Amino acid sequence: MNNPILVIGAGRSAFALLQYLNQFAEEASFRFSLADGDNSVLQLKSQTLANSDPILFSALGVGELISLIKGHRIVISLLPPDLHPLVGKACLACNAHLITASYESPAMREMANEIEEKGLVFMNECGLDPGIDHMSAMEIIDDIHSKGGIISKFHSYCGGLVADEDDDNPFKYKISWNPRNVVLAGKGTSRYLCNGQTALLPYHRLFSTAEDIVIKGWGEFEAYPNRDSMHYAKVYGLNEIRNLKRGTLRKKGFCKRWNVFVQLGMTNDDNLLEFHEGANYCDFLSVFLPEFSLEGEKALMEVVNDEQIVRDILQMGFSKENPEILHRKNGTPADFLLDLIVIKWRLNDTDKDMVVMVHQFEYIVNDVEYQTVASFGLKGINSSNTSMSQTVGLPLGIFAKMLFYNEIHQKGLVLPLFKNIYRPILKELANFGVHFQVDTQPLNRSLKLKS
Amino acid sequence: MNNPILVIGAGRSAFALLQYLNQFAEEASFRFSLADGDNSVLQLKSQTLANSDPILFSALGVGELISLIKGHRIVISLLPPDLHPLVGKACLACNAHLITASYESPAMREMANEIEEKGLVFMNECGLDPGIDHMSAMEIIDDIHSKGGIISKFHSYCGGLVADEDDDNPFKYKISWNPRNVVLAGKGTSRYLCNGQTALLPYHRLFSTAEDIVIKGWGEFEAYPNRDSMHYAKVYGLNEIRNLKRGTLRKKGFCKRWNVFVQLGMTNDDNLLEFHEGANYCDFLSVFLPEFSLEGEKALMEVVNDEQIVRDILQMGFSKENPEILHRKNGTPADFLLDLIVIKWRLNDTDKDMVVMVHQFEYIVNDVEYQTVASFGLKGINSSNTSMSQTVGLPLGIFAKMLFYNEIHQKGLVLPLFKNIYRPILKELANFGVHFQVDTQPLNRSLKLKS
Repeated sequence: MNNPILVIGAGRSAFALLQYLNQFAEEASFRFSLADGDNSVLQLKSQTLANSDPILFSALGVGELISLIKGHRIVISLLPPDLHPLVGKACLACNAHLITASYESPAMREMANEIEEKGLVFMNECGLDPGIDHMSAMEIIDDIHSKGGIISKFHSYCGGLVADEDDDNPFKYKISWNPRNVVLAGKGTSRYLCNGQTALLPYHRLFSTAEDIVIKGWGEFEAYPNRDSMHYAKVYGLNEIRNLKRGTLRKKGFCKRWNVFVQLGMTNDDNLLEFHEGANYCDFLSVFLPEFSLEGEKALMEVVNDEQIVRDILQMGFSKENPEILHRKNGTPADFLLDLIVIKWRLNDTDKDMVVMVHQFEYIVNDVEYQTVASFGLKGINSSNTSMSQTVGLPLGIFAKMLFYNEIHQKGLVLPLFKNIYRPILKELANFGVHFQVDTQPLNRSLKLKS
Repeated sequence: MNNPILVIGAGRSAFALLQYLNQFAEEASFRFSLADGDNSVLQLKSQTLANSDPILFSALGVGELISLIKGHRIVISLLPPDLHPLVGKACLACNAHLITASYESPAMREMANEIEEKGLVFMNECGLDPGIDHMSAMEIIDDIHSKGGIISKFHSYCGGLVADEDDDNPFKYKISWNPRNVVLAGKGTSRYLCNGQTALLPYHRLFSTAEDIVIKGWGEFEAYPNRDSMHYAKVYGLNEIRNLKRGTLRKKGFCKRWNVFVQLGMTNDDNLLEFHEGANYCDFLSVFLPEFSLEGEKALMEVVNDEQIVRDILQMGFSKENPEILHRKNGTPADFLLDLIVIKWRLNDTDKDMVVMVHQFEYIVNDVEYQTVASFGLKGINSSNTSMSQTVGLPLGIFAKMLFYNEIHQKGLVLPLFKNIYRPILKELANFGVHFQVDTQPLNRSLKLKS
């Protein structure tokens, strides 16, 4: 295939990217390749995308990837992150640029020299989070630094949620992205910078210590820190920073409910469970709360100590009166919990998802202390054309366009942290509704302390 | 060296074993070899053990181990468990039997065929726990099964503790064995059998759900389940079992205090921390509770919610008035916590440690339901001649004696689960004060339910 651009992965999250590329291909008179392992998805997509050519592929060895990539100049991969080192190797072999929305991995870093030597660009973390968060943060950071400012605090939060009009469950959450990541979110110990010191927060305290955050125009949220925030001091060039936290947003009320699953151990992904045919989610709950099989609700109250939350949990499928039947016989606790939320938190066809992001800065310029809050929110159109697919896919597409037109002077392994990269992307994103509200105020902290 | 027996490891836990072997060597007129990497320990020990020959060794490759073992018929290893596969390989090469108090590892199981083909015996789990727990449990299980009994419940708990007269800290705990294992105890998810169903208990709930247990003559304890109890249904031949739990004993009051460290995340062994010179345990506490640096005690009360426990924790070295200085600059949280408990929970020279074990059985024989409780406790003499060293070391020594006299017909990889092995060991252990009190009562459960 001699199309300039290849997209690998035509699933749900590719929607906005494919629309964007199809439009761009129309304007610039080229055709792009669309590869997927599912023929029906592929046929459906390529029918609605007039400028695309479908390629069905199955195996994912380097050899197959090389056959797939050969002839293309730019590859955009929406494959799972752990496949990207393989895709990277194949791109190197085919002299193709690579763009992904995944975190830059150590395996990818090992290829850095070779990427640069070949004059290629491998761009990672160019979606929503990571992606738009980096770009919008760097725009503010570069601006403050250019004025000689010193930044003491940077907290940044992002969430893939559901619009208020469609959040009709007690968790106010529906699934707009990889549901497995929803179940495993926050695993491990979170690490952030607080008053110049390392702070560690274990998984079992993550959801009980979530911070309340109001985002003007978008409502009340809760935020918990992501795994490693401290790493970003270096990434963002924030050597002076004393408070640095990156985290995840959920709607108010989510965390104390999700915390029940965490406390019980239902998000465990290491232990295999086996159930008899016809077993239900009461049996499943009894694994974590053996007393539940004898005492029911009362046993759950002992752990949760909040009647409303107990009711909300039971309503998920754990009530003795009307328990949800298990959808598999074997699996880890996380597998069973995943089955449940995929059903209970399904984004229905007409449901609109919602993406919200907020940055909070505190800094000093010319002896005056300021606070800047920058935020954006975006609602999806329906369960196909989601805000998640737009915010993840559009930066990938926009960067592909810049590569197509040879507008990128950087070579090697890059992140979207450079002015010449983030400015045009943020500018074009604004045309699609991704527009940050920025509010800057002087902080009269010393005055307050004196009065 | 052509001594029949070699002991590798002459440290603290070897005390009773070495005394026993020295006595046995005296009676049977042979000399045994004693190997260690620390020359001063080795010289000191071999001076007091008239029938021992010291061997200093350093590197621990298979080659070095083969040189060390060559010429010996029986090897008793007190090395850390992860070295035992190497020791096993060297024993195979030297045609030597191996005895350890460590858990049988998958790596050891891979050698099973070769051990058997060579007519050797590799005995693992032949100390206290694992060890005496297996032997004493199997004696009761075999007895019940021989009467056609059906066992519905078996709970077994063991603890290495400090004698009541010396438990002078709020945790009522001192260190009589590997302190790192004390810090990491219970990590992961515990798995046991409850009413015929798998039960999973995550680490963060382990210490808050500990069960109270009174052991006649030995006092009040708390028990929490060990990592994998379910595995032992097969090991003990308990196909009929519906309640199976193995666990750890602590003195009453320990668990809710230790739980503070677990909740805060101080037992984390994955994240590296770095402190400035002169930093103290208040700085360390602030890593897990950033508010502590500003609010002190009040911040801790928010998490702990019990004034007495907050005082007990602060007294460990976290109080702002008199904080303990950190003993290292770099390490994981577990490393720093380890440093602290090694000082604060030191077994002083005249302190007596204490080992306690209890088995609880419920079973039916001839339509009558019974309950059997078997327990033993043993106090040490001082901080060298500990009950821990006796209960870990004596079974190793006794089994070595049986091997020496060719009293073992089993070949291959074995555990002390066989009558011909556990009977003589338990019998000789009784001469050293390890004597189980067994109390059997009919259980009038159905009567109780009806009344």
